[in-house]
Amino acid sequence: MQAITSVHNPVIQAAKALQTKRGRDESGLFLCEGEHMVAEAVMNPPGDVRILFVEENQATKYAALPAAAPQAAVYAVSAQVLKAVSQVMTPQGVVAVVKKPETAGLARLGKHVALLENVQDPGNVGTMFRTADAAGFAACVLTPGCADPFSAKALRATMGSVFRVPCAEAESAAKAAREMKEAGYAVIATTLDGEDFYERAPLPEKVCLMIGNEGAGLTNEAIKEATHRYRLPMRGGAESLNAAVAAAIFMFEIAFRG
Amino acid sequence: MQAITSVHNPVIQAAKALQTKRGRDESGLFLCEGEHMVAEAVMNPPGDVRILFVEENQATKYAALPAAAPQAAVYAVSAQVLKAVSQVMTPQGVVAVVKKPETAGLARLGKHVALLENVQDPGNVGTMFRTADAAGFAACVLTPGCADPFSAKALRATMGSVFRVPCAEAESAAKAAREMKEAGYAVIATTLDGEDFYERAPLPEKVCLMIGNEGAGLTNEAIKEATHRYRLPMRGGAESLNAAVAAAIFMFEIAFRG
Repeated sequence: MQAITSVHNPVIQAAKALQTKRGRDESGLFLCEGEHMVAEAVMNPPGDVRILFVEENQATKYAALPAAAPQAAVYAVSAQVLKAVSQVMTPQGVVAVVKKPETAGLARLGKHVALLENVQDPGNVGTMFRTADAAGFAACVLTPGCADPFSAKALRATMGSVFRVPCAEAESAAKAAREMKEAGYAVIATTLDGEDFYERAPLPEKVCLMIGNEGAGLTNEAIKEATHRYRLPMRGGAESLNAAVAAAIFMFEIAFRG
Repeated sequence: MQAITSVHNPVIQAAKALQTKRGRDESGLFLCEGEHMVAEAVMNPPGDVRILFVEENQATKYAALPAAAPQAAVYAVSAQVLKAVSQVMTPQGVVAVVKKPETAGLARLGKHVALLENVQDPGNVGTMFRTADAAGFAACVLTPGCADPFSAKALRATMGSVFRVPCAEAESAAKAAREMKEAGYAVIATTLDGEDFYERAPLPEKVCLMIGNEGAGLTNEAIKEATHRYRLPMRGGAESLNAAVAAAIFMFEIAFRG
């Protein structure tokens, strides 16, 4: 195992660049840290971990990781060097540089798909991946206005689901909705003035669920392309639900009620 | 309108004390800030706003508030003084000191009740209030291990629902569950090893939904008191859902599917 002792080492500088969206976009790589997330990265799918930085005094604890990722370059680093690439207050001894998963074409995605338009909060984007995973959704499609699911905060909220649920990018929600319709999907717009989702007729086999921005909801362009418009009923005085909560109720209804 | 120009003014010091849980517990008061939340405080229920601090150069914008809360002491304060009582980076010109809503006795709560045991994240507690409101739940019952719903972060996540959904305190979830059973409620434990919630028999009229800690789930003592144990099915590789998301799926199923 090679040792890196300086934060000025070019490998460390290159890894640090992945803390920004620009660095991630340019390289197709992202940072992943902590025991649980790095273990997920090593497993899903194997071969995508490019670099492992292991804190020198925790090499024994993390001995299984290099063995499970034989293609990865492994570096023993000091606590100070690890802190430079880490994005949390208390690093957990291991940071990985991982290749972003390949994305499938929109039309070949499988039965249930979530289409996120301008979902801005990284925690919401991450939580939506986690929920999509649990509900058996085939993919999450994101517009450029969404928070990056490979940022540190979003990744934490995914709890590793980003390794299991394919992520595709769409130029716009309206364009993606058109493509999905042509591929035979029902496209649901979630809007406060839609029909009561609990009063719906049974849904078709293939469903694309569109989820909009936390404050503004879906754009009119996206809503126009929908085949169905639904809202969740509100009983009390609440005007709306947390975005990740609303998305989850829709996803579980689609997955388990149809 | 009286003016306060110094952060050392005793009224300001007393308000600042409400930034801590201890200060809120000892006084039965809490801080509420921003246009939307203070407007909710003034309306629900009227009479509970004790003090309004209005930034001097925004008195016109907030002129309707003192009129709607005639019982409140109103102070014009400088931006610097407002910042001292505020808990956000960019104060929005108004902070209120509000009396905590009265709590009802456990057994008289109404049809659907959420019982939160050791839910630690203030955002989760707040989001659960917001969801409970939307699902028409009659109350949220909290154990001492829960985050304080009247903290700044939790309040923001409630989006004002804390003014509409009564909050009751319980010594322990197990004790509250026993009382609820005696009052005729079905008590549901949400656990990863329960029965599939989507395969359930129709639920009785009165339901108490128990939600546990984000990491550890419900305590064994609480689970032992349950009349039903349910889990949400997981289709993908996800092992669990975000706590506020899981709570929401259960609440909406109970409210709209029964």
